[in-house]
This record gives sequence, structure tokens and C-alpha cells, in this order.
Amino acid sequence: MNRTMNEYLKIDPWKIVEERFDAARMKSSESLFALGNGVMGGRANFEERYTGPTLQGNYIGGVYYPDKTRVGWWKNGYPEYFAKVLNAAFWIGVDISIDGETLDAAQVEVLDFYRETDMRRSVLTRRMRVRMRSGAEVAVEAVRFLSLARRELGVVSYSVTPLDRAAEIVFSPHIDADVRNADANYDEKFWEEVATEEDAVRSRTKKSGFEAAWAQAVTLEGAEFRCETTPERVRHRAAVRRGPGERATLYKYAGICSSLNHAPDDLVAAARAVAADGRAAGFEALLREQEEAWAARWHRCDIRIEGDAAAQQGIRFCIFMLLQTYTGVDTRLNIGPKGFTGEKYGGVTYWDTEAYCLPFYMATAGREVARELLVYRYNQLDKAIENAAKLGFRDGAALYPMVTINGEECHNEWEITFEEIHRNGAIAHAIRNYVRYTGDAAYLAEGGLEVLVAIARFWAQRITWSEARQRYVMLGVTGPNEYENNVDNNWYTSYIACWSMRYAAEAAAWVREHRPEAYARICAKRAFDEAAETAVWADIDRRMYFGEDRERGIFLQQDGYLDKEQLLARDLDPAERPINQHWSWDRILRSCLIKQADVLQGLYFFGDDFDRETLRRNFDFYEPRTVHESSLSPCVHAVLAARLGDMAKAYELYLRTARLDLDDYNREVGEGCHVTSMAGTWLAVVEGFGGMQVRDGVLCFAPRLPEGWRSLEFRVDYRGRVLTVRVQPGRVEVTNEGAPVEIVVLDRSVRLVDRIEIAL
Amino acid sequence: MNRTMNEYLKIDPWKIVEERFDAARMKSSESLFALGNGVMGGRANFEERYTGPTLQGNYIGGVYYPDKTRVGWWKNGYPEYFAKVLNAAFWIGVDISIDGETLDAAQVEVLDFYRETDMRRSVLTRRMRVRMRSGAEVAVEAVRFLSLARRELGVVSYSVTPLDRAAEIVFSPHIDADVRNADANYDEKFWEEVATEEDAVRSRTKKSGFEAAWAQAVTLEGAEFRCETTPERVRHRAAVRRGPGERATLYKYAGICSSLNHAPDDLVAAARAVAADGRAAGFEALLREQEEAWAARWHRCDIRIEGDAAAQQGIRFCIFMLLQTYTGVDTRLNIGPKGFTGEKYGGVTYWDTEAYCLPFYMATAGREVARELLVYRYNQLDKAIENAAKLGFRDGAALYPMVTINGEECHNEWEITFEEIHRNGAIAHAIRNYVRYTGDAAYLAEGGLEVLVAIARFWAQRITWSEARQRYVMLGVTGPNEYENNVDNNWYTSYIACWSMRYAAEAAAWVREHRPEAYARICAKRAFDEAAETAVWADIDRRMYFGEDRERGIFLQQDGYLDKEQLLARDLDPAERPINQHWSWDRILRSCLIKQADVLQGLYFFGDDFDRETLRRNFDFYEPRTVHESSLSPCVHAVLAARLGDMAKAYELYLRTARLDLDDYNREVGEGCHVTSMAGTWLAVVEGFGGMQVRDGVLCFAPRLPEGWRSLEFRVDYRGRVLTVRVQPGRVEVTNEGAPVEIVVLDRSVRLVDRIEIAL
Repeated sequence: MNRTMNEYLKIDPWKIVEERFDAARMKSSESLFALGNGVMGGRANFEERYTGPTLQGNYIGGVYYPDKTRVGWWKNGYPEYFAKVLNAAFWIGVDISIDGETLDAAQVEVLDFYRETDMRRSVLTRRMRVRMRSGAEVAVEAVRFLSLARRELGVVSYSVTPLDRAAEIVFSPHIDADVRNADANYDEKFWEEVATEEDAVRSRTKKSGFEAAWAQAVTLEGAEFRCETTPERVRHRAAVRRGPGERATLYKYAGICSSLNHAPDDLVAAARAVAADGRAAGFEALLREQEEAWAARWHRCDIRIEGDAAAQQGIRFCIFMLLQTYTGVDTRLNIGPKGFTGEKYGGVTYWDTEAYCLPFYMATAGREVARELLVYRYNQLDKAIENAAKLGFRDGAALYPMVTINGEECHNEWEITFEEIHRNGAIAHAIRNYVRYTGDAAYLAEGGLEVLVAIARFWAQRITWSEARQRYVMLGVTGPNEYENNVDNNWYTSYIACWSMRYAAEAAAWVREHRPEAYARICAKRAFDEAAETAVWADIDRRMYFGEDRERGIFLQQDGYLDKEQLLARDLDPAERPINQHWSWDRILRSCLIKQADVLQGLYFFGDDFDRETLRRNFDFYEPRTVHESSLSPCVHAVLAARLGDMAKAYELYLRTARLDLDDYNREVGEGCHVTSMAGTWLAVVEGFGGMQVRDGVLCFAPRLPEGWRSLEFRVDYRGRVLTVRVQPGRVEVTNEGAPVEIVVLDRSVRLVDRIEIAL
Repeated sequence: MNRTMNEYLKIDPWKIVEERFDAARMKSSESLFALGNGVMGGRANFEERYTGPTLQGNYIGGVYYPDKTRVGWWKNGYPEYFAKVLNAAFWIGVDISIDGETLDAAQVEVLDFYRETDMRRSVLTRRMRVRMRSGAEVAVEAVRFLSLARRELGVVSYSVTPLDRAAEIVFSPHIDADVRNADANYDEKFWEEVATEEDAVRSRTKKSGFEAAWAQAVTLEGAEFRCETTPERVRHRAAVRRGPGERATLYKYAGICSSLNHAPDDLVAAARAVAADGRAAGFEALLREQEEAWAARWHRCDIRIEGDAAAQQGIRFCIFMLLQTYTGVDTRLNIGPKGFTGEKYGGVTYWDTEAYCLPFYMATAGREVARELLVYRYNQLDKAIENAAKLGFRDGAALYPMVTINGEECHNEWEITFEEIHRNGAIAHAIRNYVRYTGDAAYLAEGGLEVLVAIARFWAQRITWSEARQRYVMLGVTGPNEYENNVDNNWYTSYIACWSMRYAAEAAAWVREHRPEAYARICAKRAFDEAAETAVWADIDRRMYFGEDRERGIFLQQDGYLDKEQLLARDLDPAERPINQHWSWDRILRSCLIKQADVLQGLYFFGDDFDRETLRRNFDFYEPRTVHESSLSPCVHAVLAARLGDMAKAYELYLRTARLDLDDYNREVGEGCHVTSMAGTWLAVVEGFGGMQVRDGVLCFAPRLPEGWRSLEFRVDYRGRVLTVRVQPGRVEVTNEGAPVEIVVLDRSVRLVDRIEIAL
């Protein structure tokens, strides 16, 4: 893997830059230049008409449609619906005509093209110089952002400058609510119109009944706008005349409001008010607000790398996308695999959130934001209990869905939906991770314990007592390595199951002791009999079967893993990679090749439970068998390689995630960016190269730089402080902007007041 | 299970009789009264208009449509199309109006109703007395058959008698080619019109390009027909007047011809000629032909049971349906799970054909017919090699499809398509079964060996050498018990794999020795290196891993089977059965419960390889764990129970298949009858109660009557002779209508000239 394989985008520390117009890359760029403010977002579609291949996408977080499931063969327990992220109204529209000719980059000659996202402030700028069919040359500049300070406001400035002759320019700013999802199982349209007014449109989603309204307010010096609104389409129109070199700039302020936050009948008024307030504030003032809001964000979480400009851009892009996707202001929202950059993987929440994203938000956005992610699952606990009941589990056992928006399961492949149950463990692990990092044990009493008990109950019913082995076994599961389905005794699943039961018991004891009232309430509400249930859990934990190969000193991924032909990834024909594009599913399943960290995921999550030699042996066995065909895989291996001091390996693995989308390794970024795996890249840097871990309640750093990096500097929010860790060859410096705190650097405990420096 | 649970149909030895009109049972009766002549068939829809719930179905064997696959989630290797049985033109139509009012049993009052299939001659008769809304009472009699003597001819006589007043009766015999499948993945219409003429319509299937034409010739005394043909619809119309008690009878002769047997441009003329010849022969003469043709059929295969009228009707119905479905006149045809009784399971050929149906046709229709079934697979060998190549197998290895019409795989559930590979073994087994029963070893040289070698090659690549076990293992398979998916070392699959390799080697030696020219041709054509390849097969056979539980003395269905909770079917809550309707797929997969014979299927196929005690132990272990939720399961257990002398068990199991459809145990006969499992019922009677087996090349009988049966008499065609076996308590009598033959009765070898009688 070579990070220069696809040098289309310019390397820049703070910007994503495209310097030419390539229609074949349009969809990819639409993903890469996507904008979001945590509650809404959209792809970098052009404002003006574009008739080339494009994937239109504007999304409002939390507004979804339950699309009827499509299956090959129905199995009992499958969900009937797949809740999908909705493509919502195209609010950015500004159609342009020059002397009667429509501006459409697919139809005219593009002479110059420049597009950038300024990640420092989340502003998309596009400049184009085109020659119209009439021969007229025109310059265009479009600047767009989604306000982080005003979450329902989108802003566009659109300038046109005739270059070689005077021209009549017609601006038609518009909102088009007649939109569809590219991915609809039965080609349905998901939205229906409620009302269209002069400057606003209001629509409702079928079945789910969400409503939203979009309003626009526009200004253009010296122009009179005429309304040309038609059902589902708001459109204003104004013509201006400009001489050569004279610029005409339209400002468009769009209010985008949904019934998540407003009464349906107030929506139009609310959207109109947002747009009008935006217009009153004016473009420049809004831009300043945006810069300030984003500067505050970056202050808490920036990462600086000296000596590797591509890596610098890569990690900033990851952080930027994560910040654009989720800001923790609403417990109904979560982090979809594609964020606001595409429709794919329709549902929103996967175990990615708990396993990969939580640590990022915890360390960069603070406790309150991270807590929202836990509350999201807490609010869906009863649905998870229903979900488990549908599969035959009883007594308040919960199985969280593989994919969900509203708590209901959306996925329907039996080997995933019913069997990839380790996700339940990741949700328990996230609670521990949160409590450990933030110190907020009180959350156990507020929501955590209920979730933990329900998850432990699930595991206690999901295991089987094997008479033959005189051990508990875990039959019929799919581990994180989805290249094995329906296996017995997947080590990772069994381990996280036992751990979940132990931690649930521990949490119960803590709540009983420290929050007796909450304890009593929870016992009553959940019919929780601590003594009896924890005794069962302890018995299972004590007598659980775990596969090992003693000779090799490794844990066995699952029963029978060593019966497979022991191929190594490096011996594969490069022309056959990725194997998921070249091998039949049958061949993949029967091979020993591993899609993503599985045993090693367990050694990552539960590193404290195992000694370094155990990690070493398992890493040396499983890493060469791992093909990393999930974007979530290399980051975990990178952290482990760094823990083992194998920095060359760590760096090699890091490179596989760092610029995955920017360099479009998998030729699929057109569908959207791999947003959740970007959190993995952050983990690789902060936990891998920064060596950050919480051990025994204390934050520890054990930095190790990859070769060639002159320095690495990252910031984390830790219990209300912003710590900056700066690593250079031979030394590490930690500064603290908050109250003094105990930390460990390279196994040395220190009390950090404002700054320490330690030689490596 | 009680065979009187659903006594809707009248018990009669030769007829299926329905004595009242019940719209709720319309679809079930349409299945049960379906007609077929081996090359075409159809459901027992009413000839006249019927606006109640109905499933229209008229099918032409071998005419199919490749419907685009529908999947939940695509996997590499899935087929793109699912070849579907096509609902073809509704040729039986005779619309009736009485004094201007349409006769429609859903709209008028049905006073009396009688419907029968006379199985002796395959004639469907329906009599109805109705009161029209006008108050007029009318009697109707419709008689219909598909000629066995003239395979492209369908005949209807339709009589109307005004009962209480004179009436004008309008007869509109018609053919409607504007039809659709109920089951179409994307709601497509599969047929398109080529031409419609006065008396005939010609259509073409989209994509697959089959053509068919339907023509009608009609007579009605004293009537003048007027043509009212419109695109895709042929219609004639005549009005007659009849006084009370005066009958008017329309005779309709339909020619149904397809491009399987005619050049497309000749189709209309051909269909017209069939219809005209039918009219020239006349209804009564055609009916006599039908009776004679069917009498000849029954002569070779009837089964008589005295002392159990329901069983008598049940087994005759099974034989009748099998005879209607397949007659071996065309190697492009095969036996679909629903025959000509419904569209479900769209494709036609499953391993049912080889495992269940072949023995029936071999023993009742003779060697030539049975051979056609083998040739069907031989003709599809190259497609099976392509199918295997698609999954990554090389060098002429063949994997026959799970479901097919034209040799291409149609099924797309990975756990079935890629893993239920034991089907390949059943195809090899059928060749052995055929050679053993018919003595026609020459077939090995003509086609058998090529198929066997290709199958053996598949197995030799599908196994894996396990370093850990120092044995060959068979990873990632689904056995006949589809309630376990993706298991390792399914005993049945591994056994049939090794057996296939042994038999391929044996067949190769036979052909080399006895048909050297054919041997040379095959070696060249298939690049077959006997010495090298059979050495590999022998090595695999010698070192293959087979799971056993030595303590219990049983073969293990698969790795880890004994880790499961050992539930017994009898301990299940009856309200939760069948479990496939009440349990989640997850729960089913994790349970030890067995859908259909799996280890026991192997002990049935390869009975000679195991001693009685081994069979006993395995039967006693697996039978109680088997829920028999496939219609193909109880028959195999019934045969084994009978072999073990457990007649009560054998009879109990036999009852679960014998009247499955007639009594609609599973409340699903509306979709069609379980035609292939009817062959299993025949096996239960002939191989179970009749104890018929071929051992060391000799036909053996070891009859054992179930309690209460006064006698059982069955006929089998054995190497050109018709043998009649009559079993009574204490004695068995075998008569022979052909040349003398050596047989074994109850372990005694006898030379059967014309008749022997032996005490039991």
C-alpha cells in the first residue's frame, strides 16, 4: 500500500484541495468535500444544475424511513423494515443562466476549476472559469457552509463574473423537495408534500411521519426576485446585468427545521425565521461565527504531525469528518458509517460507535458528549429487550441491534443479525470505557447498570451447557471477522460475554453500595435479583470454554480454526485482492483469512488482562492471516503493533487507514466516506503512537514515534482538562490547561500541574 | 398425528372427491385436483369466470423464465437469475352467461357441488347446481382431461342445464395468454405476444425466448360461434336456448404446442392441427384413449392396501401425481417439487429427483424412463463444471446446482447454494442405484462415468487436509438437515463424498475393462488420468475424518453436535410445532433438532455398509431428535424403522407422509402438492413394508405389514418383468409376468418363474 498511489488531491495541512474538474471523480469529490454540522449535512453537490453523474445527498440527522425489507429467503426473526437515512430536500440549489444559456459544468467547457474544504472552519469553496457555448467566459465562485453556531442554518454565497463581455445573469435560488433515495428497495419515494409556500416547502416522510420544512431568504444587490414556486419546489428568480469583470453575488440563507425539534405546524415559521435571521446577520458575520465555533472545536482535539505532510492532512481530515458528523447535542443522533457523506449502510448505528468512535469523542469532546452516546443506547434498551424476545430470549435479556436508527433491528442476514452478537459486548465495554476515562461512575446508577444487567442476562441465556465438554459453550456466532459465519466458541465473543457478566456484577455492587436508592429503583424496575443472577453469571464465567492452542500459545479464534489450510495474506496473488471482490463467498468462508481484528480485538479491548508475551504470540499468529478488508481493522492492529514496539508494522498498518478515503484505496469513496473508521485512525495515532491508555483509573502515555516523523502533538480532553502531548524523537512533553492531574508517562507516575518533559 | 384430522375429502380407493363448495378451500382444491400428462399440467381452476381467491396455474414442462435474483445482501458466487416455472396461457376457459348474467360461483348461490378426480383415468369432473341472482336454477357439469395419448391436447366438455325455466345460455370458450406468475421478483410479466389469430394465440417468453401457441376448436350442437378475439385473447361466443331440463354441452379441444418440439413459425399450425384432430376424434373416443393409456400405466405400478381405506387412497394419490408429473418422454423435463400443481420453488430440479423419485420411476416405469433422469444430469454436466468453476474449483470438477431448470444454479442462500453440496453425492448415488436395479452397467460408458469423475474431482478439491487432525476434513457444509448451516464434518456429506470417489474409481475400472473404446474417448474428452486421480481419491478415502461418539456408538452428525442441549422432539410444546413457524432461525440453528434425515439418510442410502446394530443405535439416537419438518423426512425414517422391525414406528412415520397433502397437515397445499415427497411415500410402502432392496445385484423382499392391514399388494417393473408382491399376515406371494428371475424373499434365494408363495 503506497500512500501516493492516488495523488489527485493536493497535500495541504488544513485543506482538502481539488485543482481540476474531472467528471469521473464527481461522486468521489462529492463525498470527500461533504459538509456537516453534527445535526445535518450533505454531499458536495454543485449548487447549479449539473447533468453529469452525481449522487445527490442532503441529510437531516434522525430523520429516517422504514423501507420494507428485501430478502432472498425469509427467516423467522428477520426485521420487516430497514430504517434508512433519508435523502432530503436539495436546499443548496442556485440555478444560473448566462444570456439565456444554463450553466451546467457537464455541458460547457470548464477552463479552470478549484475546490477546497477549509477544515479549520468547515467551509466549502469552489471556483470555476467556464466558456459557455455562446463563447462567453464566466467566473463562478460558490462558498457554502452549514453553521455550527446555528444548527438549522445553511449558507451559500454564489458569485458570477462575466469575463470577456457583458452578460445578463439569471440567478434562480431554489429548494427542491421532490427527491428520492438512490437506494430504495422498491423504488418508492419516501417523502410526500405537506405544503409549498412562496419561500418554503414542508414535507412529511411516509410511514415514519417525520416532518421537515425548508425556507430560503436571498439577497442579490440590485436585483428584484420573482417567485416561481411549484409543488415541492421553492424557486426565486432574478436577472442582473454585469459588465466584464463585474461580479454579481447572491447570498442564500436556508432554514432547515424538522419535527425532531419543532411542532409540525410551526415548522415553516421556524425555518423562515432561521433563514431571515441569517439574512439579517449577513454572510460575513455568519462566517465569523463559523470560524469561532470551529476554532473552539479544534482547540480541544487537533493533532499535529511534523515530517509527514500526507499523514498530517490525513489525520486532520479524519478528525474533521468526525466533528462534522456528531457533536453530542441530541441523544437521538448517532454516527453512521458514512456520516452525512452518503446513503450507504442506510441505518445509522453499528457497534462502530461503541468500539471505535466513543474513545474519540470522549477524549476530544468531553464527558457530556460521550455520555450522549451511552444514553442513546440506554433509551433504546426496551427495544433491545423486545428484539431479544423476538429471538426467544426472556426475562429482560437484551440484544442490541446490529444496525439501527430507532432501536429496532434493521439488518437481515441471519449470520449477522442473529449471530454477530458480540456487538452486545461492545455496548457493555463502552460503559466501562466511559466510566474509566471520565471517572463518572454515577452513570452506572443513571442508566449504565440497567443496560449491563440486560446484556448479562442475554449472555447467560445465550450460552449452552455442553455435557460433552462439561463446560459452557457459545454456539452459532459470528465474530468481528465476518469471513467466518455461524461458528462455535468464537474466542472474542465468549471473552466479551464473560467479561460483560463480570462487569455487570461489579457495576451492580457499586450501585448498591454508592447509590442505594437508584439500586432499589433498578431492582424493582428490572426485576433484578442481584444475588441469584450474579451467582449464575459467576458460574458461567468460571466454567466457560475457551479454545487455545497450547503448543503455539494462542487463543483459538473458534472451534476448528486450525483445521483450515493455513494461508498467509502475504502469499496471496495481489490480483486476487481484496478477496471479497475476487473469491466466492464459499472460498472466503473456508479459508483461514481474517477480515478484521477478532481475537486481536479482544486483546485490544482487554489488554490489561493479558501479558505482553501472550499479545506477541497472538499478534504474530493472527496478523499475517488478516486481510484487513474492513476499514475498521488496521487501526486495531496498528495500536497493538505499537504496544509491542513494532513501529514499522504499526506505521504500515496506520497508513492503511489514514488516507483510505482521501486516496480512495478501495475505489468506492463515491458512495461516501468511511466515517466511523476515521475514529480508528485517531485511535492508531493517539493510542498507538501516543500510547494513551487508562490503567487502574490513571491516564497513561507511552509514546513511540514512527520513523520519519519529526514530531507528533495531540490534544485530549481528560476529565475537564485539555492535555497536549508533544512527542519528538527522544522526548515527550505534556502540558495541561486545567487543574493538576496524576498521569503516568512511560510507567512513571507524575503529578502534572502545567507542563512536564520526559526523555524517551 | 391423526390421519382423520382433516376429513374434508371423501375416502375412496380410486377417486379424490370434494362434496361441497368452500371458497376458503378453493386454492387447496386447485392443487389437489390438478391434472398433468407428464409434459404439461395445471391447477384445477374453474373453466368459467371465478372472482373469488384463486391461484391460476397452467404449466408447460421445460418452458421457464430467468427471473432476476432478489437478495438481501449479495455474495460472490450467487446466480443472477432464478429460472422459474412459468404460468402459461389459461387454455381451459369457458365463460358462461345465463340470460345475460355471468356464471361466477363467487357471486351466485351454490346449491350443490361435487368435484372428483378419477385417478384411474386422470379425468376431472365437476358438477354444480347454482341459483343465479335472477333466481334461475342451473346445473353445470365440466369434465376435463389432459390427454396422455396425445401430449399436446387438452379437452373440456362443459354442460349447462337450466333447471326451473328456459334460458338463453351464452358459451364463450376462450384462451387467455395475458397471464402472470404470482411469484415474480420484480412484478414483471414474463410473456409477450407474438400474434393472435381467430382461433389461436402465439406468445414468447422474454429473455429465455421460448415460444408457445394455443389453439381451440369447439363444438356445440345447434350453435354458431362468433369470433371475439383481441390481442393475447382468443374467444368464441355462441348463444343457445334451452328449456328446463335440456342440456347444452360445449366440447372444447385445445392444442398446446411449444418451441421445445416445433419450429416457432410452425407453432400455430401445429396447435391448430392438434385441436382439429381432437375435434375430429370426438370427446368420447378421446376419453377411451385416455382410459386405455392410464390403465396401461396403472397395470405396472398399482399398490393395493386392504384394511386401511385412507392409506389406500393416500398411496394411489401419490402414485397418480407422480405419473401425472413425469413420464420420461423428454430429457429436458424433470420432477419439480410441486409438479404441475403450483409455482412454488420456481426452479424444477432438486436432489429430490435422485434421492426420492428415481427409485419410483425405475420400479414403475422401467429402465428407459429412469435413464432419462440420469441423462438429464449428464446433459447438464458442462454447466455443473461451470458452476463449480465460478466457486473456484478447477480441472473439470462439477458441482450440480441445488435448484435448476437448464443446468444453471438458481438458488441464492449461501448456506445452501455453496454449502449444501451433498446433492452432488446424490447424483452419483442415483447412477449406482440405476445400474444396480436395472443391470444396465453400459450406462457408465455412455454418460455415467463422466458425471462420476467430475463429481469425484469436486470432492477431492472440496476437502481440506487438517494438519491439526492429520486427517482430511470437510469444512463449511450444510447437510440434508438444513436446520444446521455451515458446519464442519457433516457425517453424511463426508460419507457420500468418499463413497462417490470409491464408486467413480470402480466405474472407471469397469468401463476400462468392458468398454475400452468409450474409456479412451472419456479419458481424452475429460482429461481423465485414472491412475493418478483414483490414487488421490483413495488416499482421501483412507484418511478422511468421520466423527463418532464411541460411548453411544453413533456417528456424529457434525463437529460439535453433542455440545448442543439434547432436546427431544416429543418434549416440545405442541403449540410450538412446527418449530420453523414458531422459533427464530437463531434458536432453530442452535438446537439439536433435526429437520430431516441426515446421518440416517446415509444409513438408508448405504445400508449394506453397516450392521443392524449400528443402524439401531443411530436410529434410536437421531429419530427422537428429528422434527420431520421436511416432507422428505419421515419416509426415510419409515423405511429404516421397518428394516429394524419396529412396525409401529414405521407406520407412525408412514402416516406423516401418506396423506400429507390430501389432509393438508401443514395448511399449505394451496401453494401446490408436495410431489417429490410422494415418491418418498412410495418408498415407505415398497421399501419399508415391502422390504424391497437390491443386494449384490439381486432383488430382495422382506415384507412386514403394519398392524391392521389385511393385505398389501404392489407391483414393480424389474428388468422388463412386472412382479406383483402380495403380502398378507403370515404369507407373501410373488407373481411374475415375465421371464424367470432370481430373487430373494426373506433371505431365501428363489428362482421365480410365475408364482411363489412363502410363509412369513
